Amino acid sequence: MLSKGLIKLVNSLDNKKYRQIHKLFIAEGTKLVNDLIKLEAPIKTIISTSNIERCNQSIEYIQCNSWELEKISFLKTSPEIIALVDIIENDFNINDLPGKLSIGLDSIQDPGNMGTIIRLANWFGIENILCSNDCVDNYNPKVVQASMGALIRVKVHYIDLPDTINELIKFPDYQINGTFMNGECIYSSNLQSNGLIVMGNEGKGISEMVERLVTKRISIPTFSDKFNGAESLNVGVATGIIISEFTRQININNPRK
Amino acid sequence: MLSKGLIKLVNSLDNKKYRQIHKLFIAEGTKLVNDLIKLEAPIKTIISTSNIERCNQSIEYIQCNSWELEKISFLKTSPEIIALVDIIENDFNINDLPGKLSIGLDSIQDPGNMGTIIRLANWFGIENILCSNDCVDNYNPKVVQASMGALIRVKVHYIDLPDTINELIKFPDYQINGTFMNGECIYSSNLQSNGLIVMGNEGKGISEMVERLVTKRISIPTFSDKFNGAESLNVGVATGIIISEFTRQININNPRK
Repeated sequence: MLSKGLIKLVNSLDNKKYRQIHKLFIAEGTKLVNDLIKLEAPIKTIISTSNIERCNQSIEYIQCNSWELEKISFLKTSPEIIALVDIIENDFNINDLPGKLSIGLDSIQDPGNMGTIIRLANWFGIENILCSNDCVDNYNPKVVQASMGALIRVKVHYIDLPDTINELIKFPDYQINGTFMNGECIYSSNLQSNGLIVMGNEGKGISEMVERLVTKRISIPTFSDKFNGAESLNVGVATGIIISEFTRQININNPRK
Repeated sequence: MLSKGLIKLVNSLDNKKYRQIHKLFIAEGTKLVNDLIKLEAPIKTIISTSNIERCNQSIEYIQCNSWELEKISFLKTSPEIIALVDIIENDFNINDLPGKLSIGLDSIQDPGNMGTIIRLANWFGIENILCSNDCVDNYNPKVVQASMGALIRVKVHYIDLPDTINELIKFPDYQINGTFMNGECIYSSNLQSNGLIVMGNEGKGISEMVERLVTKRISIPTFSDKFNGAESLNVGVATGIIISEFTRQININNPRK
């Protein structure tokens, strides 16, 4: 049986304000919770419909009925397990960025896109994602579901994007790569590991303030036979293609696979 | 004012059976409907809350109130315009495939992934997508929303995938590329334009029957520092990365940008 207080707490975690007050986010589903356990995420509470193995003394385990779990779940299909996880505060130190590749997100709104990009960063070994303050919150339940375990392995920083880029361009040879429809073709452009890849908002693209700071304009060429400008790529997919091409060029002489 | 018959018709189009009976699908939102007009899609009816310009004599235009449109919309945020569009029957001729790149989808279930892959195919000039019969229907309203105008420019065929691959491998040098965790790294593998790229189901990957017919196993390398097997990529993103790398290699000496 779940207490009223716990139900109220879980329900409140749909809201960024309450996630920040409680310093907690919610992760749902067997696969995701198992991944988080494997990754030693700071899980506070596990609520489950079955009697699960208590593998960690510091975690509070609560068993409940499936209809109770359904009541607190944010998913369409109610999961068998939900975890409350401590929010990790990532310290942002701009000096960590030079010499490596990072991602900059300018007003990304869709939780699915944000989650996809966090998974991509984890897959390609990118440690830091810089988000403009108006990006969707990375602990939004839909972002958590879409990012899978990657959420706790990649550092996502919410910062003033133009201000931060203004500082970054002071580092020697640091590139601000911006993705536009009319940039250099990524396949023939010389892509560098020392820089930021900026992806713009789903509808409006990169904001004017950030565009002015871009040092390299890149684009994914289209091979559509009857191109008429209606073509577009989802921003998550575009980010994947661009990071893959950076990775290929950077590792061309040193594949780690 | 919308007639009861029209409301019933539109509501029924959420269901594949009724889409097939009426040979119609529904497209929602100003951007998508405008794209379809631009692409000369076979639009039958346009239902709109505003008095729009009648640009085509063969289209039936109906004006209604926003609450009426809300009642028939499948979107969370009700659009200002909905179109009923004729389903185009794509004849499948296996002889169209040799010499070019096509995509094979083995039991893709998520409408968003299907839509993303159709957009990708359009962007990269891939004409044909072969779907196993158990893939999500390409005229599902969520697929239509995710694929944007690309839906009417790419030929999506629902076929028996193993049977069709069995025929395809009889063509000279035709490759069946399958994506697995343990295939050849796409960056160093020699990727050919004469073949099929098979992507597997979101959870289970490529089915055993199809796996047996794969002639080239490929994979996207991971560069995660602390790889522990929890890493994964969304199938739409993985398809984007793979098609991009095929395109790059195929066009390396002949960029069309």
